Amino acid sequence: MTLGVCYYPDHWPRERWAQDAKQMKELGIERVRIGEFAWSLIEPEPGRYDFEWLDAAFDTLHDAGLGVILGTPTSTAPKWLVDQNPGMLPVGADGRVRGFGSRKHYCHRNATYRQESDRIVSALAERYASHPALVAWQTDNEYGCHDTTRCWCDTCRSEFRTWLKDRYQTVDALNEAWWTVFWSQTYRSFDEVELPEQGVTETNPSHRLDFYRFASDGVVGYNRVQVDAIRKHSDLPITHNSMGLFPDYDHVDLVDDLDVIAWDNYPLGNLEESPFPDDIKQKYLRVGHPDLVSMSHDLYRGLKNLPHWIMEQQPGQVNWASNNPLPAEGAVRLWSFQAFGQGAEMVSYFRWRAAVGAQELMHAGLLKHDGTPDQAFKEAGIVNSERAAFDGDTVRERLSSAAAVQEDAPVAILVDYDDMWSSQIQPHAQGFGYWTAMFGLYEPLQEMGVRVDLVPKKRLTMDGDRGRSLDGYKLVLAPAMQITTEPLAKVLTDYVAGGGRLLLGARAGSKTASNLAHMQQPGHLSDTIGAQVVRVDGLRPGVTRTVTAGSQTWTYATWGDLIDASGGAQVLATYDDPACQGSAAYVARSHGQGEFRLLGALLDLPSMRSLLKDWLNDLGVRTWDLPDGVRRHGPYLANYLGETQSALGHTLPPFGVVKLDLGE
Amino acid sequence: MTLGVCYYPDHWPRERWAQDAKQMKELGIERVRIGEFAWSLIEPEPGRYDFEWLDAAFDTLHDAGLGVILGTPTSTAPKWLVDQNPGMLPVGADGRVRGFGSRKHYCHRNATYRQESDRIVSALAERYASHPALVAWQTDNEYGCHDTTRCWCDTCRSEFRTWLKDRYQTVDALNEAWWTVFWSQTYRSFDEVELPEQGVTETNPSHRLDFYRFASDGVVGYNRVQVDAIRKHSDLPITHNSMGLFPDYDHVDLVDDLDVIAWDNYPLGNLEESPFPDDIKQKYLRVGHPDLVSMSHDLYRGLKNLPHWIMEQQPGQVNWASNNPLPAEGAVRLWSFQAFGQGAEMVSYFRWRAAVGAQELMHAGLLKHDGTPDQAFKEAGIVNSERAAFDGDTVRERLSSAAAVQEDAPVAILVDYDDMWSSQIQPHAQGFGYWTAMFGLYEPLQEMGVRVDLVPKKRLTMDGDRGRSLDGYKLVLAPAMQITTEPLAKVLTDYVAGGGRLLLGARAGSKTASNLAHMQQPGHLSDTIGAQVVRVDGLRPGVTRTVTAGSQTWTYATWGDLIDASGGAQVLATYDDPACQGSAAYVARSHGQGEFRLLGALLDLPSMRSLLKDWLNDLGVRTWDLPDGVRRHGPYLANYLGETQSALGHTLPPFGVVKLDLGE
Amino acid sequence: MTLGVCYYPDHWPRERWAQDAKQMKELGIERVRIGEFAWSLIEPEPGRYDFEWLDAAFDTLHDAGLGVILGTPTSTAPKWLVDQNPGMLPVGADGRVRGFGSRKHYCHRNATYRQESDRIVSALAERYASHPALVAWQTDNEYGCHDTTRCWCDTCRSEFRTWLKDRYQTVDALNEAWWTVFWSQTYRSFDEVELPEQGVTETNPSHRLDFYRFASDGVVGYNRVQVDAIRKHSDLPITHNSMGLFPDYDHVDLVDDLDVIAWDNYPLGNLEESPFPDDIKQKYLRVGHPDLVSMSHDLYRGLKNLPHWIMEQQPGQVNWASNNPLPAEGAVRLWSFQAFGQGAEMVSYFRWRAAVGAQELMHAGLLKHDGTPDQAFKEAGIVNSERAAFDGDTVRERLSSAAAVQEDAPVAILVDYDDMWSSQIQPHAQGFGYWTAMFGLYEPLQEMGVRVDLVPKKRLTMDGDRGRSLDGYKLVLAPAMQITTEPLAKVLTDYVAGGGRLLLGARAGSKTASNLAHMQQPGHLSDTIGAQVVRVDGLRPGVTRTVTAGSQTWTYATWGDLIDASGGAQVLATYDDPACQGSAAYVARSHGQGEFRLLGALLDLPSMRSLLKDWLNDLGVRTWDLPDGVRRHGPYLANYLGETQSALGHTLPPFGVVKLDLGE
Repeated sequence: MTLGVCYYPDHWPRERWAQDAKQMKELGIERVRIGEFAWSLIEPEPGRYDFEWLDAAFDTLHDAGLGVILGTPTSTAPKWLVDQNPGMLPVGADGRVRGFGSRKHYCHRNATYRQESDRIVSALAERYASHPALVAWQTDNEYGCHDTTRCWCDTCRSEFRTWLKDRYQTVDALNEAWWTVFWSQTYRSFDEVELPEQGVTETNPSHRLDFYRFASDGVVGYNRVQVDAIRKHSDLPITHNSMGLFPDYDHVDLVDDLDVIAWDNYPLGNLEESPFPDDIKQKYLRVGHPDLVSMSHDLYRGLKNLPHWIMEQQPGQVNWASNNPLPAEGAVRLWSFQAFGQGAEMVSYFRWRAAVGAQELMHAGLLKHDGTPDQAFKEAGIVNSERAAFDGDTVRERLSSAAAVQEDAPVAILVDYDDMWSSQIQPHAQGFGYWTAMFGLYEPLQEMGVRVDLVPKKRLTMDGDRGRSLDGYKLVLAPAMQITTEPLAKVLTDYVAGGGRLLLGARAGSKTASNLAHMQQPGHLSDTIGAQVVRVDGLRPGVTRTVTAGSQTWTYATWGDLIDASGGAQVLATYDDPACQGSAAYVARSHGQGEFRLLGALLDLPSMRSLLKDWLNDLGVRTWDLPDGVRRHGPYLANYLGETQSALGHTLPPFGVVKLDLGE
Repeated sequence: MTLGVCYYPDHWPRERWAQDAKQMKELGIERVRIGEFAWSLIEPEPGRYDFEWLDAAFDTLHDAGLGVILGTPTSTAPKWLVDQNPGMLPVGADGRVRGFGSRKHYCHRNATYRQESDRIVSALAERYASHPALVAWQTDNEYGCHDTTRCWCDTCRSEFRTWLKDRYQTVDALNEAWWTVFWSQTYRSFDEVELPEQGVTETNPSHRLDFYRFASDGVVGYNRVQVDAIRKHSDLPITHNSMGLFPDYDHVDLVDDLDVIAWDNYPLGNLEESPFPDDIKQKYLRVGHPDLVSMSHDLYRGLKNLPHWIMEQQPGQVNWASNNPLPAEGAVRLWSFQAFGQGAEMVSYFRWRAAVGAQELMHAGLLKHDGTPDQAFKEAGIVNSERAAFDGDTVRERLSSAAAVQEDAPVAILVDYDDMWSSQIQPHAQGFGYWTAMFGLYEPLQEMGVRVDLVPKKRLTMDGDRGRSLDGYKLVLAPAMQITTEPLAKVLTDYVAGGGRLLLGARAGSKTASNLAHMQQPGHLSDTIGAQVVRVDGLRPGVTRTVTAGSQTWTYATWGDLIDASGGAQVLATYDDPACQGSAAYVARSHGQGEFRLLGALLDLPSMRSLLKDWLNDLGVRTWDLPDGVRRHGPYLANYLGETQSALGHTLPPFGVVKLDLGE
Repeated sequence: MTLGVCYYPDHWPRERWAQDAKQMKELGIERVRIGEFAWSLIEPEPGRYDFEWLDAAFDTLHDAGLGVILGTPTSTAPKWLVDQNPGMLPVGADGRVRGFGSRKHYCHRNATYRQESDRIVSALAERYASHPALVAWQTDNEYGCHDTTRCWCDTCRSEFRTWLKDRYQTVDALNEAWWTVFWSQTYRSFDEVELPEQGVTETNPSHRLDFYRFASDGVVGYNRVQVDAIRKHSDLPITHNSMGLFPDYDHVDLVDDLDVIAWDNYPLGNLEESPFPDDIKQKYLRVGHPDLVSMSHDLYRGLKNLPHWIMEQQPGQVNWASNNPLPAEGAVRLWSFQAFGQGAEMVSYFRWRAAVGAQELMHAGLLKHDGTPDQAFKEAGIVNSERAAFDGDTVRERLSSAAAVQEDAPVAILVDYDDMWSSQIQPHAQGFGYWTAMFGLYEPLQEMGVRVDLVPKKRLTMDGDRGRSLDGYKLVLAPAMQITTEPLAKVLTDYVAGGGRLLLGARAGSKTASNLAHMQQPGHLSDTIGAQVVRVDGLRPGVTRTVTAGSQTWTYATWGDLIDASGGAQVLATYDDPACQGSAAYVARSHGQGEFRLLGALLDLPSMRSLLKDWLNDLGVRTWDLPDGVRRHGPYLANYLGETQSALGHTLPPFGVVKLDLGE
């Protein structure tokens, strides 16, 4: 449980720095992230570096006993660099160049910008690798923010063709993988392939999926340039600060090159910009949706199966959402313990002091514009006084400590960015979304206090260090797991044969790796399960229907896979809508020591909770009886509502947190 | 009552073809459409044709006793053709080129693309004209789909100027026709005229109407290129598959060059994308709005006054709407008999087998991805077993048979694309739309089981083969008939003088042929009717008002024409809103043996039904008392709701159809 | 009380002119605006002027005893001028050239277009300055309409750099003013600065504010070109017709170069396009929102502190809103007396006769398309018969007469376009808008019949002729007064010290002149008031909260400034939401003979009325007890509802107006 803060010494008079550092230290801050937007100060003219101010900042922080996380400044190239290399600017899907004036004005694949990034990062690494204050590196800032993952510049078109050639070797293989026989899309050479999304109407979904992958690889490759530059000089941990459920690049690939993954946690802004309905946005107006935040924690913890960092923690109102309310009194403390309880090793507040100008001037900090403490300052102090004593290990030691993940999760949910993109590309119903489908499983588990691991699906079919096993999980859930391959089917079948339980959700196994339809759904698992999805039903928002499961009636919306169980599966629930002709909605099939289940409908929250509760209790997994708005985060019990509640013998004040005895 | 199917042998292994053909034949399929997207297989390299596979497909179908409708593949030019002729790509209203990657990537006026189209169509016509399997041709596919009717390329700008010169001869005539004296829009030469829609704000409505006409002529002219190429080699019927109420080109012009007109019937997708409110979309979730479908049937039957074809009939869920639900059990059968009952000669299902890849992979077929029968297969079989025996006439003979249109309609509705465009260009109220205004008259007639012909307004003023008469109709309705000319007024007056009844709806006669305001509304008919619209009232959505008609109170929304009846018309209803100052809303005037009526308000459904019912009964036209959701389609009675209903002594199961004795 | 009309002799046969003029004169019309879109008739070929028709029009009007307001035709440059100078076309924020085909197709800064404008205006001024009919000039038409204030052409980019250089002298000063240290936005020269709004995401708010100022200066500078051209030949009054609450240019700057300011009053179209909720739009469907109109009157009267003109008064339905209903019977009369009561010297109806073609063909006039009188003609006649006799003074004499402003207002509201732009650039909550915040204060005052002056904030800190004083106002309100400077603080403090009462609303004093955050809010006034805003709360639409003010509970939405009153202010109300931690919402501080108040919450209408009523009564300002929908406009009492009401002893029929004895 480490505390950090994001600090911009470059924004304030040097006379103030020592006071800031002293105040941080007294507050319990141990790590300070600096530098990540300061390129034009570090290199005010082409080739002329000015490290003097940054040296002084390092020294000041070091003198106060603080560690430094140094961010590379590549999110904000100076104007002179853009003017020298206008080809570095990204191009939008509409063909327009996206210019200077804010941030992230670069294409991840532009060769010149990769060279310039290597140059500035190398210069920083060389200079600060051995500074005693340095504890870690952050590459860039929030990759892909502002729709910059995908770029439609000439470089990208050209590199996409090369990327495709690497992937398919022959154009015939590409034609087959993309089923280009449809609509005369057949290519005679890779040079005929364009970037998608500029067609007269919807372009080929296989083409688009590969473009999404290509763009993601561009981010990963760009990050590797920075990691390589740092590694020549420093072996301190390297991280990157990602953004919650940001979908545009494959975070599983990114973390291979990082020692620790961080994310930036803005519960109120994220809720405001989410698709949740108005009543939920009002219910959680001042604290955010607890499960939206927890799912992000579990995602990032799961990416490396290691404690993760919160690099930026919302401290008060943000400035960037459509509406920017104040957090509740106690929210900053609540979010901090939620993070630690969900496995974070560090919570770093953004930002030390509110900016007096520019885009973020209405974003709160620990200190107000005038440098006096704001509410978050007080709450960070409370967190500091409540947390256990700092143990003295180095960052890297603590990160690799298995003990850092306090509690084994009985349930895993498989996560995969290819599945997400496939869902985005052909949603078939407006309400269908990958995260939404996952949330439909995740939220009821949180309501019951059940700890969950998010496990990257692609890791299951990898060997060696990067491989990951499902052993030990009582139950594995696979929401919207569209893309299945034979190796994946084998891993999952082995898991079930060994005693595991696997729930396949709607659209499972509907697609191949190149985004074609499987002849049978769920793909290679159909025969084993003895069931097949024979029709799909995409319902418009507002339409609900029911299924009958024994004596229960469950409600669903948006989606129904109609299941033919004639292959031997046991029918657990059937659709009630006559259009479904009595088709199965939910089936089971024992296999080896375990069991497969296939659930075609997107059940609503009470229905899904009922289904999971019964099943978990049958499996001997403890579920907790928690009041509305109360959640368990490892050893903490938290109240997300503005009224006092009682749970598990504890009294929880509004937005309060208490420590549980986990034996309770 | 012929059955057909759309088939893509190019998508499947040749080993499967014979089995497919046999299965089709057994199902009762007689005609198979093929080839319409296969250019890159027919001509894989520039100038190198590969007919071998297509020959084999023809032979296989012929061997099974099936007829072939051959579609020309011009909707999907191969990439090599685009790369050779990038100028063929269409340009959007935003000035951006619309690229390769989907379909319909061509400007209808590009000279090179017209040549290339002539070349490929000629090659196909030459090769297959005499193949014994061939029964008909289809040109291109769904003209104008994806907003391709109107194009803003340099060719279009240049040809627009030529088109205007042909139309107006002198620029002074254009200036007068467009009233360019307004806002200094006066042109000194045709070369000064730009394409509209790129102005700082709204451009001249006369300019826009002419651009809409010009673009429509581009489609018609492009189709003629194909028809001419086919005609050199074949005298079999030529058709085109249009799209329901698609508004962008003038279908009346298109059909002059065709022997039979077809349309593609997707009831669920069309309802989903329609402006109907949510409750109607839920009510008809699984079967579509019956009257939306029937109005399209009546439109296409009326275009040539001959039986029409359904070239593509939705078989299960589609893939292209925002939400894509399953049809009800029985819906495919219902739609088939609806089509035959509304005068279709053929229903052809789209598609034989679901595609396993590309844009339409989530669209159902008669067979599923894996080649096993889906629900629509079963229902097509039922249709086949229920329909009367196939009579053995040739396609052309059947089409020209007057008997094919089973029942004379007592009511006609005038339809005109110029009127539609004029409404689109200056709606004056958000809720005002041409099809909406027409539907307001059409739906109550359907609820009362009254058969309706849609008669192209422009045919009324033509002589010879293309002319059409109103003789025999008891009642003629003219919704949103904005544009009137002196010849039209004469035709309508003659019809009334001879004993006809004519109802003019809101905005009737408000515009001249060049989209100027008539000094008096309804134009040349004002004096005859003895009434004049003196003010117009465009109401925002949600606002309703009433009129008093004798002892009845009728409700209306969106629109009110305030009528001054002081010229001698009899007032039948007056507006209740004080802002209307007691103005007339509905007036009548006898003329010769008949009567004119003018109705200024867009009445709601119950009010309009009441008005029409009384009038029809006075005229001796039978109206039927049908329950909610039950409709009569010629000799069939159909239930569009999911509950059993009784009507006319018949019991109708959910989504059921029964044959009536029309003497009932 | 002068009546006018907008007339287009160029649209009608010359034979009709004399009859039109005679009819105008009989109706009581005294001034006729002509010519403002007629460039292509005045100069049909480059350099060839045709004044003959315009001479004739002048003479015809003069012969009938009418005065002419001549509009310069620069809103609609002819096509030949555009073809000669395509660089004059404006460029949108999306980088696309905005073409010919409607109007306002020019960039205000294009040098060639400024020369051409000077040329045509000079030619008109030279020819007509001495014509006896001429009474005034109008420059251009509705500056900035259709988003033309801001332009992204190359000229604008280049001139923006020059403008910045003039403003800041050194690039270091610009870097400081814009706080470019944030996100490496530091510039090394003015030539590095781009136009904003083309960045990857939100651009710098200081950068944007300066761009907004620059664009506004472009309009003002362009207008000055025309004024200078006219002044060489004529000393008659020069006006311009602005658009209600149009926000894009600074009207305070514009009026320096004008003798009288006019605006165009379209109550129904403006309500339809406003953000008012549906129930308000229905309530005032046929008469518009009274306070929206009155606030515009008070704005324009306040700009020069002189009687203003209505150059275009809606006469019947307009054509340009999303929905275009008819006005109520009596509405035109009502709007006319509202205008006179709120200080207008002239009401001029738009237009004399409805256009039979082009963009405005569905816009009503005093005469209908066919030249017969429409409803507005009748109501203008009633206005004429009811108004006091015309007094014979010249236009200029009447305008400068202090007596023209009939009644001293006890309350002033400060208005400032910089404050508006700052609010637009960083709203922080969707519902926060400058006019909305002002309306929240203005509407309750209108409901209580209290006369209000809108006083340009920037005039308070000016000396000499352009300066303006707050002396005499009992109460001054400052809504959303974001930008404060030391000189402003001094003026306001002096006003309070001298006995004034000042209410600062939400966000007051939050920004510096370059749109940075003040360290303390409300800026330089914090210390004097003894209070400081310490946090801000931006609430989403639909969320309401309360404050407790003694025994009252007030409701607010959208915004709360949390106030720390520990500097000595007296707390008048506190927030009830626990997230606000008991913070003050409303505080007071006596100063000298007067009092400051600071109100952080945007109260709803009943709450704000209660607050103001008590305070005004304490200050001895009379408030009136008026029924819903009844308003006082100087000496007139008007009923904006469709039912008869009683108020102040008068019976007001639907939409009626009566003259009050102000002693009542």
